[in-house]
Amino acid sequence: MRVVDVFGREVLEDRTVLVGDGHILAVLPFADCPAPEAREVVDCKNRPLVPGLMDAHLHIESTMLTPQNFARAVLPCGTTEVVADPHEIANVCGVAGIRYMLDAGRDLPVRIHIALPSCVPCTPFEDAGAVLDARALADLWTEDRVCSLGEVMNVPGVLAGDGDLLAKMEAARASGHVLDGHCPGLKGRALQAYAALGIGNDHEETDCEILKEHIRAGMYVFVREGSAARSLERVLPVVTEANAHRFCFCTDDLHAEDILARGHVNAILARAVRLGLPAPCAVAMATINTAQCYGFEKVGAIAPGYVANLVLLEDLQDFRVHTVWTEGVCRVQEGEVLVSVEASDIPEPLLHSVHLKTPDRASLALAVPSGRARVIGLLPGDLCTAERIMDVKTDSAGFFSPEDNPGLCKIAVLERHKSLGLAGLGILDGYARPGLSLGGALATSISHDSHNIVVAGSRDEDMLLAVQTVERMNGGIALVRNGAVVASVCLPVAGLMSLDRANSPAHAPFVRVG
Amino acid sequence: MRVVDVFGREVLEDRTVLVGDGHILAVLPFADCPAPEAREVVDCKNRPLVPGLMDAHLHIESTMLTPQNFARAVLPCGTTEVVADPHEIANVCGVAGIRYMLDAGRDLPVRIHIALPSCVPCTPFEDAGAVLDARALADLWTEDRVCSLGEVMNVPGVLAGDGDLLAKMEAARASGHVLDGHCPGLKGRALQAYAALGIGNDHEETDCEILKEHIRAGMYVFVREGSAARSLERVLPVVTEANAHRFCFCTDDLHAEDILARGHVNAILARAVRLGLPAPCAVAMATINTAQCYGFEKVGAIAPGYVANLVLLEDLQDFRVHTVWTEGVCRVQEGEVLVSVEASDIPEPLLHSVHLKTPDRASLALAVPSGRARVIGLLPGDLCTAERIMDVKTDSAGFFSPEDNPGLCKIAVLERHKSLGLAGLGILDGYARPGLSLGGALATSISHDSHNIVVAGSRDEDMLLAVQTVERMNGGIALVRNGAVVASVCLPVAGLMSLDRANSPAHAPFVRVG
Repeated sequence: MRVVDVFGREVLEDRTVLVGDGHILAVLPFADCPAPEAREVVDCKNRPLVPGLMDAHLHIESTMLTPQNFARAVLPCGTTEVVADPHEIANVCGVAGIRYMLDAGRDLPVRIHIALPSCVPCTPFEDAGAVLDARALADLWTEDRVCSLGEVMNVPGVLAGDGDLLAKMEAARASGHVLDGHCPGLKGRALQAYAALGIGNDHEETDCEILKEHIRAGMYVFVREGSAARSLERVLPVVTEANAHRFCFCTDDLHAEDILARGHVNAILARAVRLGLPAPCAVAMATINTAQCYGFEKVGAIAPGYVANLVLLEDLQDFRVHTVWTEGVCRVQEGEVLVSVEASDIPEPLLHSVHLKTPDRASLALAVPSGRARVIGLLPGDLCTAERIMDVKTDSAGFFSPEDNPGLCKIAVLERHKSLGLAGLGILDGYARPGLSLGGALATSISHDSHNIVVAGSRDEDMLLAVQTVERMNGGIALVRNGAVVASVCLPVAGLMSLDRANSPAHAPFVRVG
Repeated sequence: MRVVDVFGREVLEDRTVLVGDGHILAVLPFADCPAPEAREVVDCKNRPLVPGLMDAHLHIESTMLTPQNFARAVLPCGTTEVVADPHEIANVCGVAGIRYMLDAGRDLPVRIHIALPSCVPCTPFEDAGAVLDARALADLWTEDRVCSLGEVMNVPGVLAGDGDLLAKMEAARASGHVLDGHCPGLKGRALQAYAALGIGNDHEETDCEILKEHIRAGMYVFVREGSAARSLERVLPVVTEANAHRFCFCTDDLHAEDILARGHVNAILARAVRLGLPAPCAVAMATINTAQCYGFEKVGAIAPGYVANLVLLEDLQDFRVHTVWTEGVCRVQEGEVLVSVEASDIPEPLLHSVHLKTPDRASLALAVPSGRARVIGLLPGDLCTAERIMDVKTDSAGFFSPEDNPGLCKIAVLERHKSLGLAGLGILDGYARPGLSLGGALATSISHDSHNIVVAGSRDEDMLLAVQTVERMNGGIALVRNGAVVASVCLPVAGLMSLDRANSPAHAPFVRVG
C-alpha cells in the first residue's frame, strides 16, 4: 500500500506496516518484507494509509450525540482522536456535566481528550446553570485525558487581568496543559498580550494578515470547518510549506446530519485537497500537528513506536474510508463499525435539567407603546445579527402581535436552570418562513452559551405549546403549527444531547426542520 | 530591527521587541510602538535579531573546558542553550563526574541541559573508570536540567534486548525524557526496531537515503559540525521546506580553539547559509526545532511569552554576534562577556583521577618474533583506521624498535583508572611526523571513550617521560623530544578538562600541537 509520512510530508509507495501489541513495529518497503510471520495479513492493494485523524477542537454537544454515539458516528470517518470542550453541558450542569463527558468518553475507540471550559458562565448578561471558578475546576486538572483549558473567549478578562481567569490559566499551565484560544479579530498589542499569557491556539480568525500575526506569535492556527462556520477557503492561502507545521483542523460545532452526509475530518481533507493543498500536508495538519500542539505522545504518525491508529482510504482525493484500526485492532470495515460501544449510565440530574417556571400568555406580552421597536435582524448564513429600528403594529393595548406584522415574529428567552421565571422578549426579522409566519412556533433548549429555552413564533399559544413540549421532553426541539406539535426531537441529556444514535429515525423530524 | 520568525520561517522587517521580567512581552511593527515607557531602549539599527542558539548535542569535555569556561567561550557566539552528554567524564569518574557537570552547569548564562550517558563503559574490550548500570543512574532522572538518555550507541545491545540498557531507556521514558540515538549506517528493519523502542534522534548518519529513513521513522536529524566530523555539506541536500522542522544542529566534539577561531552554532549557520539554506530555516534548525525535540518550553523563538534569550547579529550571512541577552539581561556586547561566571569547587577525586601503575621499559617491550606485524594505519582526516599487515624490523632479541622502522611508531594504551598495570601495545603507520620520527613521543589522558593514557612515539625513553609528565599533571597532554618535555597542557579535571579559560596562554602549546 501507500503510506503518508507526516514528518517529511510525502507519500511512500509500496510499503508494508508491521503492527504488534497495539503499536507500529516497522514501516518497510514491501520488497523488504517477504513473508512476515504475522498472525494476520491484510492486503491493502495500492490504497493510501494515513494516521488516525484528529479534530483539534469541537463541542460534542453540538452534534446532539452522547460521547458514545459521537464516537460511533465519527469512527467510520477515520477519526480516532478529538479534543472536546464540554462548554455547553458545563454551562447547564457545571462540574457534573464535565464529569459525565469525561466518564462517557472513557475507553472508547475514539480517544476523547477534554478541554476544561474556561468561561462558565459565558457572559454576565444571561443566567447559566453553573458558575465555575478556578476552585471549581481545581480537582479536574489531573484527570486522565484532560489536555487544556478550553477556549478562553473572555478576551477582555484576559487583557484586564481578571483574577479568577488568570488563576484558571495558571492552573492549566502548572498541570502542563495547553491554553486554548478564541480571539476573532484580535491583533497588534492586544494579541501579543493574549499570547504572552500563554494562549497557544485560535480557531476563530479568518483574516489572512491577522492569521500571520497569530503564527508569528507562536499560536497554532486551527482551520475550522463546522456546520455553520467554515473558514478553510479563506485560511488556505496563508498556508505555506514553511509554516504548515503550525496549522491544525477542527470542526468546533458540527451537526450529526453533516457527519452522516459529508463526513468529519476526512471531509475537511477532501475539501482542502480540492482547494489545492498537497495531500500529505493536509494529512499532517489533521494528525501530527494536532498531536504536537497538545503534546499527545506517540500518536499522529505512521512510524515505529507509534500507536497503531491507522486509516486505510480509497484515495487521497475524496478521503473515503475503507478500514479503520485503533491500537492495531480493526474497528471499521467498509463503513461498518465492528466494535461495540455501550451507553453509560447518565446521572439523573443531567436527565432532568429543565427547571422552568411554566410561562403563560402574560409572560410573552411584549409592550411597544411607541410603536417603534429595536428589532433583531437575522443575516442569512451569518452568526451575527443586525440592529433594525422599525415601526411595528400593535394591538389596541399597545402589545406587539406578529400576526399583524408579516415577516416579523416574536422571540423569547426563558430562564430554565433555576425556575427563576425570568424572560427576555424581542422581535425577530428575517426568521419567519412560510410555515412559521402562518401561525407556528419553534422552541429549543439549545441556545448558546447559556442554553435557556428560546422560542420564536407568530402566535403566543403556539409558542407556549412549543415550550411546554420541550419542557415535557426534558429538553429538545419542538415545532408547533396551528396548535399542534408537528415535529419534535428529544434531547434529554442536559437539554442538549439525544440518547439515540446519529442515524436513528428519531432524529428525522429534526433533520427536516434543519 | 529585523526579527527572524522561526514559526513561519521568515524575516520580519522594522520590528520592536518589548521585554519585561526576563520574557518577551510583544513583537510589534516599529511604527506601532511610538514611545514605549521602557526603562531602557536599545537602538539595534537594521540588524537581525534571532533567538538564542542551541547546540542539540555535544560533549563539553571535548572542548577541554569546564562548564563555566565553556559557557564563557560560547556565549559570545550567541549560544544560550546546549544539551551536553557527560559521557567522557562519566567513563572516568562515574556518577561523581555527572554530578560535577550538573553542579558546574547550574545558574550559568548558557543553560546546560544534561543527557545521562547510556554507555559507561562504552565497550567490554577496555577498562573504563566506572560501570553505570540502570540502578546507578536511577537518582539522576529527576534532577533539574536532565533532559534525555545520552546517545544510545550500543545498537547491538538495543536490538538484542540487553536488559540493563532497556531498563535505562524505560527509566528515561518514564521520566518524560527523550532517548538520544547514535546509529551510523543503521537502516531497514534494524533502524525500525531501534526507533520503535523510542530513540528520537541521531547525529551520526550522513547518507542521504538513510537520513530520509530516519525522518520517516520519526527521528530528528542532528546535523553535526564538530572539529573533526563535519556532515553539513552532505546532509543539506536532504533538507526541504516540508521536512526542515525535523532537523537540528549539533557539534558533538568541538575543540576550544575552533570556538575561538570560527565560533560555535553561529559558525554552522554561516556555513549552512553559504551552502544555500535560507537563513530563517537555518535559524529554526538551531532554535525552535531543538526546543521541540527536547520539549524545552518557551525558548527558541522570538514571540510573546518566550524567555528573552536574544542574539543581535551583524547580518544573516556571517552570523557575527553583536549583542546577546539571556532572560532579558545583556550578557555580551561587541564580543565582551559582561556577566561574571565563577568557577565552582571541584571534588578532589576528579582532580586526582590518574591512577597509573608507573610503566617502565619492560612495559613497552613489543615482541614481534615473526617480523611480520598487524599495523594500525591512520587515514588522513578520518576517525576510522585501516588494518595493514607489514614486515617490520626488530632488534636482536625480536623486539620492535621504531627507530629502525622509519614512518612507523609505537603506541601504547596504559590502564589508568585502578593502577591495574594493564597495557596494550601496537604499531602505528602514518602518525609519525618529522618531529616525532626523529625521536619523540606524545602522551594524552584523552582517549575516547575509556580515557586511559595513550602514548605514541619512536623512543621508549621519550614515551615513558611523556607518560610520567601526564601523570604528574593529573592528566593532560605532553610532547617530549629527545629526552625533554617541549610542550604540555594540564588537564586536571578528570584528565579531560583544563582549569583555564579558552583563551588562556596556558593552552598555547596545545594549540601548536593540534
